[in-house]
Amino acid sequence: MAQGTLYGLGVGPGDPELITLKALRILKSCPVLAYPAPEAGDSLARAIAATHLPGNQEEIVIRMPLDGGRGPMEAAYDRAATTVAAHLDEGRDVAALCEGDPFFYGSFMYLFGRLAASYPVEVVPGVSSLLAGPAALGTPLAAHDDTLLVIPATLPEETLRARLEGVDAAVIIKVGRHLDKLRRTLDGLGLTANAHYIEHATMADERISSLADAPSRAPYFSLVVVHRRGEAWK
Amino acid sequence: MAQGTLYGLGVGPGDPELITLKALRILKSCPVLAYPAPEAGDSLARAIAATHLPGNQEEIVIRMPLDGGRGPMEAAYDRAATTVAAHLDEGRDVAALCEGDPFFYGSFMYLFGRLAASYPVEVVPGVSSLLAGPAALGTPLAAHDDTLLVIPATLPEETLRARLEGVDAAVIIKVGRHLDKLRRTLDGLGLTANAHYIEHATMADERISSLADAPSRAPYFSLVVVHRRGEAWK
Repeated sequence: MAQGTLYGLGVGPGDPELITLKALRILKSCPVLAYPAPEAGDSLARAIAATHLPGNQEEIVIRMPLDGGRGPMEAAYDRAATTVAAHLDEGRDVAALCEGDPFFYGSFMYLFGRLAASYPVEVVPGVSSLLAGPAALGTPLAAHDDTLLVIPATLPEETLRARLEGVDAAVIIKVGRHLDKLRRTLDGLGLTANAHYIEHATMADERISSLADAPSRAPYFSLVVVHRRGEAWK
Repeated sequence: MAQGTLYGLGVGPGDPELITLKALRILKSCPVLAYPAPEAGDSLARAIAATHLPGNQEEIVIRMPLDGGRGPMEAAYDRAATTVAAHLDEGRDVAALCEGDPFFYGSFMYLFGRLAASYPVEVVPGVSSLLAGPAALGTPLAAHDDTLLVIPATLPEETLRARLEGVDAAVIIKVGRHLDKLRRTLDGLGLTANAHYIEHATMADERISSLADAPSRAPYFSLVVVHRRGEAWK
């Protein structure tokens, strides 16, 4: 029997209309879906895709232990990969749903790393919050000969400072509880005036402000966009 | 009369199926389209959208002088902005078609810079070759606490070297005639073994190879993906 294909489907940043035609076609045609979800509660990736689902698909929910650290998370993906592999062995295609883009800091890498050597895998790129954020903000992200840095706020303060120095544009991802550290870093570099905060871009609860007016607590899916020059496109 | 809206529509990296539902809806509903094209020949942005067009839209072709430099290019956009503005003044929506994403090194910034202060503008983000390239390559772009640098190959060799040193992942865009300089730079940094060349990602003439096996001449729409570690997602 021919093996099924594992599809990594980027479902976009949040607005269900920002899925691609290709991801939608494959999403509807796969008999099995897989997606991450918190330990209790709904999966964001599934919520984005929900309006498009035919309603007759088997669903593999990959529950993430909330404060379990890397070990329990890896164990959850070990179990999920075994379940996914059983479907692929039976010739059934499996669509793994990914917020944004599967290969851009996505959780799809955990299934990919476990299964890509043994099964056919196809990745369908999606609109990342990296691009949806600036579109919502109404400010070009990068232009001409700009360098653009993408950097997780989880890094140590001195690493953030060293890396952000001198770039033309930067997007700081995974802001979450690192917002205070990030404010200090950008203040020290004189970049606060050109920094914007974007939370849940393109979702119903989207929130956009200057960094100065950002809330004191940020969710994981928030980012800060910084430009060295005020108007990058000029 | 209410002004029309200028839409910056990301039509994706090349495969017509990688357009979003939102861009497709707006693309079909606008009475006027605008897109860049070479001095002679077809527009890539229009070609990507072609299968989706209803066939009854007015089209503003923004012809780029081939070797004219910045002056003639700016003049072409001055003329195009005047034409677009006349439609917006008459209440007609205009869809500006953009390869990839409008705010990611896109030519949309030239219309945006000229018209955003005077007219309603909405940007619909798209799938960029930044993400479509790694998907076609089958390699995660960035993961965990990686820093990711996007840098144009047009920069001087010493700038490329300084910026690329120490990053975890990098995408070098606008490779074109700068491929030899880029090879030297990556060789000097010991990064050639983990560098891949991607040309026209997701298009019919897509070409992917190791950097060592890349052609001696690269088109403008080509990129090189580099990882410090061989398997970024592990």
